[in-house]
Amino acid sequence: MDEKNLDPTLHQEPAEQELDLAHLVESAFDAEMLDEVFSLTSNLHPADMADIIQQFPAQKRLRLVELLHTTISGEALSFLEESVREQILPLFTTAEVAAAIHELESDDAALILEDLDEDMQREVLDALPLEERISFEKTRSYPEYSAGRLMQREVVLCCPHWSLGQIIDSLEDIEHLPEHFYDVYVVDDDNKPIGEIPLSWILRHPRRTPVAKVMNPEVRSVPVNLDQEEVAYIFQRYSLSSMPVVDQDGRIAGMITVDDIINVIQEEAGDDILKLGGVTQETSLYGNIIQASLSRFGWLFISLINCLIASFVIAHFEQALESFVVLAFLMPIVASMGGNAGMQTLTITVRSLSIYNLRAGHVVSAIKRELSIAALNGLALALILSSITLLWTGSLKIGFIIGMALLFNVLWSGFAGAFIPYILHRVNLDPAISAGPIMSTTTDVIGFSLFLGLATLILL
Amino acid sequence: MDEKNLDPTLHQEPAEQELDLAHLVESAFDAEMLDEVFSLTSNLHPADMADIIQQFPAQKRLRLVELLHTTISGEALSFLEESVREQILPLFTTAEVAAAIHELESDDAALILEDLDEDMQREVLDALPLEERISFEKTRSYPEYSAGRLMQREVVLCCPHWSLGQIIDSLEDIEHLPEHFYDVYVVDDDNKPIGEIPLSWILRHPRRTPVAKVMNPEVRSVPVNLDQEEVAYIFQRYSLSSMPVVDQDGRIAGMITVDDIINVIQEEAGDDILKLGGVTQETSLYGNIIQASLSRFGWLFISLINCLIASFVIAHFEQALESFVVLAFLMPIVASMGGNAGMQTLTITVRSLSIYNLRAGHVVSAIKRELSIAALNGLALALILSSITLLWTGSLKIGFIIGMALLFNVLWSGFAGAFIPYILHRVNLDPAISAGPIMSTTTDVIGFSLFLGLATLILL
Repeated sequence: MDEKNLDPTLHQEPAEQELDLAHLVESAFDAEMLDEVFSLTSNLHPADMADIIQQFPAQKRLRLVELLHTTISGEALSFLEESVREQILPLFTTAEVAAAIHELESDDAALILEDLDEDMQREVLDALPLEERISFEKTRSYPEYSAGRLMQREVVLCCPHWSLGQIIDSLEDIEHLPEHFYDVYVVDDDNKPIGEIPLSWILRHPRRTPVAKVMNPEVRSVPVNLDQEEVAYIFQRYSLSSMPVVDQDGRIAGMITVDDIINVIQEEAGDDILKLGGVTQETSLYGNIIQASLSRFGWLFISLINCLIASFVIAHFEQALESFVVLAFLMPIVASMGGNAGMQTLTITVRSLSIYNLRAGHVVSAIKRELSIAALNGLALALILSSITLLWTGSLKIGFIIGMALLFNVLWSGFAGAFIPYILHRVNLDPAISAGPIMSTTTDVIGFSLFLGLATLILL
Repeated sequence: MDEKNLDPTLHQEPAEQELDLAHLVESAFDAEMLDEVFSLTSNLHPADMADIIQQFPAQKRLRLVELLHTTISGEALSFLEESVREQILPLFTTAEVAAAIHELESDDAALILEDLDEDMQREVLDALPLEERISFEKTRSYPEYSAGRLMQREVVLCCPHWSLGQIIDSLEDIEHLPEHFYDVYVVDDDNKPIGEIPLSWILRHPRRTPVAKVMNPEVRSVPVNLDQEEVAYIFQRYSLSSMPVVDQDGRIAGMITVDDIINVIQEEAGDDILKLGGVTQETSLYGNIIQASLSRFGWLFISLINCLIASFVIAHFEQALESFVVLAFLMPIVASMGGNAGMQTLTITVRSLSIYNLRAGHVVSAIKRELSIAALNGLALALILSSITLLWTGSLKIGFIIGMALLFNVLWSGFAGAFIPYILHRVNLDPAISAGPIMSTTTDVIGFSLFLGLATLILL
């Protein structure tokens, strides 16, 4: 395996190390030195294997996978990005996929199963033992992005009247022990969680210690249908390493471990960036170009409509523009500064909403805060811009007009940037997606109207 | 504690539950029912206590902390946001802070110590045992945001020639056992890590099993000065629960656990959102308004300069604008669409850089990809906009001009959005901060120049 990590004097970035390996494999592959390809990729961590497959150019990827085929583990498949996994899964036989799924824990297995087309999914399910098949059907009955989909069914349970030694002895008899687990859950006769014991506590106390004496009775659990973002919030807030998931009746249905949660946090935070940037559903550099174009086009088309609305607003002030062409030079500044200040407020608000920092009771104070900041910055920017305009055009009136228009547009953007995302959030729309276009249209329309409207009033 | 979480039928969002409690405490506090305040906040999880303090309006917060004072644990302090912690720390005596720090693990303790002013920091350090004091000085010698700052010094080590039973017995003798740990590290005579054993493996095997037989010899470690973002990347990539940190000579200096990493991932992903939105250094809604204004002003000022540059460009084409006022109506569209398309590309590139998806060897293919997407969307948008312009103005020439200008500006933005962040990244500038302004200036200048320049050439 990657022994470089053992060497602390080597400060190469991890990404650079992998690049070296991926390049070596690609060169060997291009030179048809297939033995070299095998020896470079043997004994790799499944995550590293997945990375090499992923980094291979799409057109060569299928040939590489055909070659390595038998050495790609189910775990490596689970580490792949969805678009790449969908591309290469058809290369495997039903029996191979069934074997890979059988070897994985239930949450990773479900990931792969879902990327198969319907026919193959049916075939793979038929090739699995009845017990696993039922378990998958159950998992798929939970809503997407819910705790139920995220959890694994393998858990370690014990009774409150046991001793710690009995827990340790019972581990030998459990058939499907989770590969990684950090806590044992204590359940009552109905299988409802009433406590938890971190493994380090089991090791730290004598074998004869009663479970009830050392367990933490304040175990947190989440219902199967809770959204994964909220599950991640609870993990993060209370620094949990694992948490039981319970069904409608409060019985343990599975558990979620912290490594699943890391991916959720990374994805959800990444989602917000991509949405604010107007790039939804495009999380990968390996995806199809036509799909990427289409997904981006929607947002650009909305922007185009916004721009056209702004153009119609400008056209209303034709007379002012014809009389004073300098207005045309300055006009974009007011709209653009409103848009920039608005994006700042919007970013803060969306971010606060997504990390649960902004609660219902605090919207009024958030708006006040943003208006104060907008007033301070708007005033400063208006003074600077008015002075520059005065120097440039020699007109005190135009300097005054642009300053006032800038100030009011920035104030509006402060209010809208705090209020619009919050309202969208309350009506269950995603503020990260929809607030941006609303924001930029209003700051454009208001910016152009204010500036050209004031100019018409004062100059004509 | 919060027993609602035990009830799976209750699907209230976690954020809403806390809101209820915070509101109850605030109402009781306002009504001066201090007994009620105490009973509501007694036995709270430190994270919940921190949240109530945080949600209290800033002006009442100090009085609340004075009241609850003795019931606020060191752990609750460590859960506070930095700005709030800085605000309330002066209310505690040196002895109280020293006691709180003494009770915490070294990483959390360092967090609090750093928020004290220099005098108090000195006093608190003097009140600590020599051993802890030296440990802090050591921690502070590591660069900010490095593995050394993130790690805790408390680790559980064993020798390869031990049996698992010896590890379990040794736990009784260790004075500063970490509160949470998931792995025991196996070290050689030089204290260098040569293996690791997850706690679940220790529990699963008989006491007499030799350590060397069950340990995972492929233990990953990171040097003390590695950047925390790269540490988080390794945790995430290999689904680790903890990892040893080694000094210059490869000896174990401490360990990082996954709960520290969750915060890093959340912060780093959040940082990128905030930077792309032009809001750096403002991670909290609880911070000071003047500071927030100042931190945002910098970016707005740069935007203003950008806008002025664009205005000077427009002023160059005064004659065209005077002859055809319709150019002024349409002019913002080209610049704005270039900016929007550029932000999409930029967002994808910044995101890919930060999750190590974009490697040096793939820049050319990334640029090709972005240019292809830009060509497809630019062509579609140009056709739509040309048609609308033709209908509006009746001029085939103006329709042609705006279409060409749009297409070329979108193509430029595709190239620049992929290339600029990558170049900034290579020269160690933060693309999330600096790429945005460069992008919007170039798309404005190029958009206005192309549109008005072509108009001057063709129409005049």
